[in-house]
Amino acid sequence: MNAIRFDDCRWLKHRGQSAEIVLSSRIRLARNIKGLPFSHWASSGQLEQIIERVQEVLPKCKETKDMEIIRLDRISSLDREFLLERHLISREMARGQDFRLVAVSPDETLSIMVNEEDHLRIQCLRPGLELRQIWERINEVDDQLSDHLEFAFSPKWGYLTACPSNVGTGIRCSVMIHLPALVLAKQVDRVLNAISQVGLTVRGILGEGSEISGSLAQLSNQMTLGISEQESLERLEKVTRQIIANELEAQRQLMREARLLVEDKIYRAYGTLKGARIISTQETMELVSALRFGRTSGVLSEIPYETMNEILICTRPAHLQKMAGSELPPKERDVYRAQFIRQRLN
Amino acid sequence: MNAIRFDDCRWLKHRGQSAEIVLSSRIRLARNIKGLPFSHWASSGQLEQIIERVQEVLPKCKETKDMEIIRLDRISSLDREFLLERHLISREMARGQDFRLVAVSPDETLSIMVNEEDHLRIQCLRPGLELRQIWERINEVDDQLSDHLEFAFSPKWGYLTACPSNVGTGIRCSVMIHLPALVLAKQVDRVLNAISQVGLTVRGILGEGSEISGSLAQLSNQMTLGISEQESLERLEKVTRQIIANELEAQRQLMREARLLVEDKIYRAYGTLKGARIISTQETMELVSALRFGRTSGVLSEIPYETMNEILICTRPAHLQKMAGSELPPKERDVYRAQFIRQRLN
Repeated sequence: MNAIRFDDCRWLKHRGQSAEIVLSSRIRLARNIKGLPFSHWASSGQLEQIIERVQEVLPKCKETKDMEIIRLDRISSLDREFLLERHLISREMARGQDFRLVAVSPDETLSIMVNEEDHLRIQCLRPGLELRQIWERINEVDDQLSDHLEFAFSPKWGYLTACPSNVGTGIRCSVMIHLPALVLAKQVDRVLNAISQVGLTVRGILGEGSEISGSLAQLSNQMTLGISEQESLERLEKVTRQIIANELEAQRQLMREARLLVEDKIYRAYGTLKGARIISTQETMELVSALRFGRTSGVLSEIPYETMNEILICTRPAHLQKMAGSELPPKERDVYRAQFIRQRLN
Repeated sequence: MNAIRFDDCRWLKHRGQSAEIVLSSRIRLARNIKGLPFSHWASSGQLEQIIERVQEVLPKCKETKDMEIIRLDRISSLDREFLLERHLISREMARGQDFRLVAVSPDETLSIMVNEEDHLRIQCLRPGLELRQIWERINEVDDQLSDHLEFAFSPKWGYLTACPSNVGTGIRCSVMIHLPALVLAKQVDRVLNAISQVGLTVRGILGEGSEISGSLAQLSNQMTLGISEQESLERLEKVTRQIIANELEAQRQLMREARLLVEDKIYRAYGTLKGARIISTQETMELVSALRFGRTSGVLSEIPYETMNEILICTRPAHLQKMAGSELPPKERDVYRAQFIRQRLN
């Protein structure tokens, strides 16, 4: 069994546009190789064939030639959990079934899952609100792969995918946004409900259910039929910019009306993060949220967004265990997490 | 109206014996001048006469000649509250009725209330567990005053006092102790109940009711009849030493069995105190208690006991308002309190 080596997540070291509210943007494309059944209906032999085709092609394309290929059935469940926390694979892939692989670019901003629901799930990610830049790159990746692989495509429907919701462009674009003032002012439900009305989806950071933890929400647009990729991402970007404006206005209002309460919350969070010897993921998210609000509002500027993003990702269970170099029961993780946070903040 | 000037409480700058558990010790003697009715039954003229007698005598005695005399009906209620928080007068005296005064020594360790329940309530205080030293001094004060004032005394009963519970020696000795480990281990009720069994009284720091705030309790011995002053304070000292031993043993046990939990509590408290922008008296007491435990247990040694004692006293409402130089509504006090604490800890 190969062990995934732990290293810093390089894109976390950068910040993108609108970093004060948008943590990251992501686009994924669903693609299937013509003439082979969708992964869930494919035989072992066919799954293996898909893998081989992809493995043949990746080294031939400029954008994908440096990608590291990881067979998910050949790594530990801890390593799969690690890749999941890193946003490189989906929860389904983390189950580690046979004939699944993921290819990852050196900077971890590009990943291609093979034999998820679709044969290929190409995913590109950047910090901040940078959907256009992502689109340019992922479109280039798609073009280069298309030179070597014939994707299932219907002139009438567009790209054919395992789930009808992806048929057409096969695109899904999403942004992770931080809305502390809207949450504090109890306006977040109203704002996010309005988003559902225009066809976008809202989820909490962990991607399951829709509960908002640490004031983080994921907005996504999965309209794939009768709308171009450009339109899809422009719609998401437009709504995101509107929400950023709402959030910043709510922040200004809070600072006008309850500045001291906000400062109290922010500095207490900072003090607790620097002091705690035992801390849960949930509490970490809430306190880092206050810290981020501190920076956005100008109350506490000493912690860079990059450090906060790093804390959010690196204090999740599999990351901690990879860093520790061994499996840790939950209570020990809480101790190790507190240690990591103190090290980053002091 | 005279304004009480605000200055630092000098004895807070020193620490006494067993300072890790005992904040302060105090003894008071109840005395009445022969031939005059107890204060509550005395006419205005008689109260004035008592005051005059005391004011005549204080300058004549070595121990009392430098005392500052404050007529409580001539200062503001804020100033009376300030003297109460400083442990210089009783709650009854803080009402500011006519013909009440208090004499205070420059270092504030000696005070004499005139026309409280008894004509004179002589009180001496020191940081730490120093009942014997206090007794020596207060006994000397009593002797010197007796050279000029004839106290009501019966050969059979001893000193006569307004309340029968003080008849005899008129002594009450008390210590303020900090029992964080016994509180955390939920053993404090058992230990303090045992104290009541041997005739001692237990109260919370604020002296009303018996609730323990910030793990601080006041133990006192008010046996005044059929027992000498020496016996009375020796009994309190013996029990206090026993409780110190119990507390230190409970601390050692906690550090053996739950060191990380204790460290977490202590460093979070420290972080919160250094960060908070708004903080109540109650929360301050709880967090300073954790800080004190930090020092006693060796976990966090950077804050001296003197600073913690100062925070406990100086963040009470009247102290804050005296420092601010104006009356402050409770919400503003919470802000000012947080500011004072940050200044002391940073």
